[in-house]
Amino acid sequence: MLGCSLYDGEKVPLSLYPALGLEVFHNFTLLHDDIMDGSEMRRNQPTVHKKWNDNTAILSGDAMMILAYQLISRSPQTALVPVLELFSQTGLEVCEGQQYDMLFESRNDIKESDYIEMIRLKTAVLLGASLKTGAIIGGASPEAAKHLYLFGIDAGISFQLQDDWLDVFGDAATFGKNIGGDIVTNKKTFLLINALNNLSPAGKKELQLWLNKKDFDREEKITAVRNLYEDANVSINAKKRMNAYYENSLLHLKKAGGPSAIQEELRTFAQQLMDRSR
Amino acid sequence: MLGCSLYDGEKVPLSLYPALGLEVFHNFTLLHDDIMDGSEMRRNQPTVHKKWNDNTAILSGDAMMILAYQLISRSPQTALVPVLELFSQTGLEVCEGQQYDMLFESRNDIKESDYIEMIRLKTAVLLGASLKTGAIIGGASPEAAKHLYLFGIDAGISFQLQDDWLDVFGDAATFGKNIGGDIVTNKKTFLLINALNNLSPAGKKELQLWLNKKDFDREEKITAVRNLYEDANVSINAKKRMNAYYENSLLHLKKAGGPSAIQEELRTFAQQLMDRSR
Repeated sequence: MLGCSLYDGEKVPLSLYPALGLEVFHNFTLLHDDIMDGSEMRRNQPTVHKKWNDNTAILSGDAMMILAYQLISRSPQTALVPVLELFSQTGLEVCEGQQYDMLFESRNDIKESDYIEMIRLKTAVLLGASLKTGAIIGGASPEAAKHLYLFGIDAGISFQLQDDWLDVFGDAATFGKNIGGDIVTNKKTFLLINALNNLSPAGKKELQLWLNKKDFDREEKITAVRNLYEDANVSINAKKRMNAYYENSLLHLKKAGGPSAIQEELRTFAQQLMDRSR
Repeated sequence: MLGCSLYDGEKVPLSLYPALGLEVFHNFTLLHDDIMDGSEMRRNQPTVHKKWNDNTAILSGDAMMILAYQLISRSPQTALVPVLELFSQTGLEVCEGQQYDMLFESRNDIKESDYIEMIRLKTAVLLGASLKTGAIIGGASPEAAKHLYLFGIDAGISFQLQDDWLDVFGDAATFGKNIGGDIVTNKKTFLLINALNNLSPAGKKELQLWLNKKDFDREEKITAVRNLYEDANVSINAKKRMNAYYENSLLHLKKAGGPSAIQEELRTFAQQLMDRSR
């Protein structure tokens, strides 16, 4: 809706239903991802497949995807075809991102660029598509809409890199999640990939030992791996990458045009994404 | 495409993509239903969740639903909004039907009318919606499109009742499936519900014994239950119901209008549905 208001404040009410459609779609992906990832908690509540069962989560998710399309279909007639096209394209990319995420679990040759592409698909495209949907309904030029989309992409990637960073270096009280969850489960985040690339042979060997260990003390593993991350400068490398995407997102936002007051609101939104304490 | 040709033969090529969309949607439901029902075989091949795994079947199904919407979105602009609405409405009904089917497994108070409503949602609406999508693209009047839809609904219900009948009274060689599968798994088909309604108290008690038995010889159970079905006139009752829906479907087809040559093709299609040997 902010994306729409950047180009035509009066059209904002017309962007409400498609905005809801994108939100329902996002929640559908959570239902199915939580089954696939075996996640038991979501927003401090038991996940749907845990509280009910897998079948309920599969079928409710399916129905939610259809409900999402029903909401998207309530876009203004003149915008319907491009909005639908963007939505379906984005939906397929989110599925692709989830498939890569699952495949990466059993692969040991993931490059940093593979990881960035995975989070672009799994996380960033939905933010980009949400903004661009608003731009289309607001009557933005194709060029402006493209830059608003890329603002969302780069902000989304930066956000996900920060999420990985917070899991290791964040403060449990303000992050609101247990610290070190990704370390305990060997999740192939940017940090782990970066550490494997930058550690000395001895350090890399030690990290591999921790990755292969089946029996370990949770806190001991977190501390050991975090120390190896420090040796490899992982925190600084991740922050650099995060900031580069963040700065780039702001360049795209500028090129997306529109009144400076709304530009400011979107900058604040991006800032809040990066400043979140939970 | 036949539904379209009933009203405008020249528009048939425009109905190709939506027709493909409905076919892809149908196949998506099979992927997810096979997970939920624990089915191991489909079209004489291992099901997707069996050949790969649940996650692959969930995510491939999700992607197929989006691909189905992409194909539906390629409807001619003038028909796009009503075709999309019908498609989403139908998709939700199919999900509802699947949910009823699963809920019925653990319920013992299913009425014949509940069962008919379940198969209407799970099976018949997709046939009805396919025909009506063609009618909309072909420019049919709302009244004609409604009757073509109801032709599909009644033919679909008749088809499903026959599918249940063939599972018990069909010929294995021509049916192409093992006979008695529904009896072995206590599937609550029209036949089982009708038998419970029509058996004498003694017969009903015997049927309940078979339903509750955990250890049994497969062929012995099939023969015993089939004999009880004979006692309750289930075969004749089911055939009567099947024929009533079939006859009704032909009345709706007539009211749907269009040239008699295409009417004849659709009658032949309905006939083939009911005459299938496999």
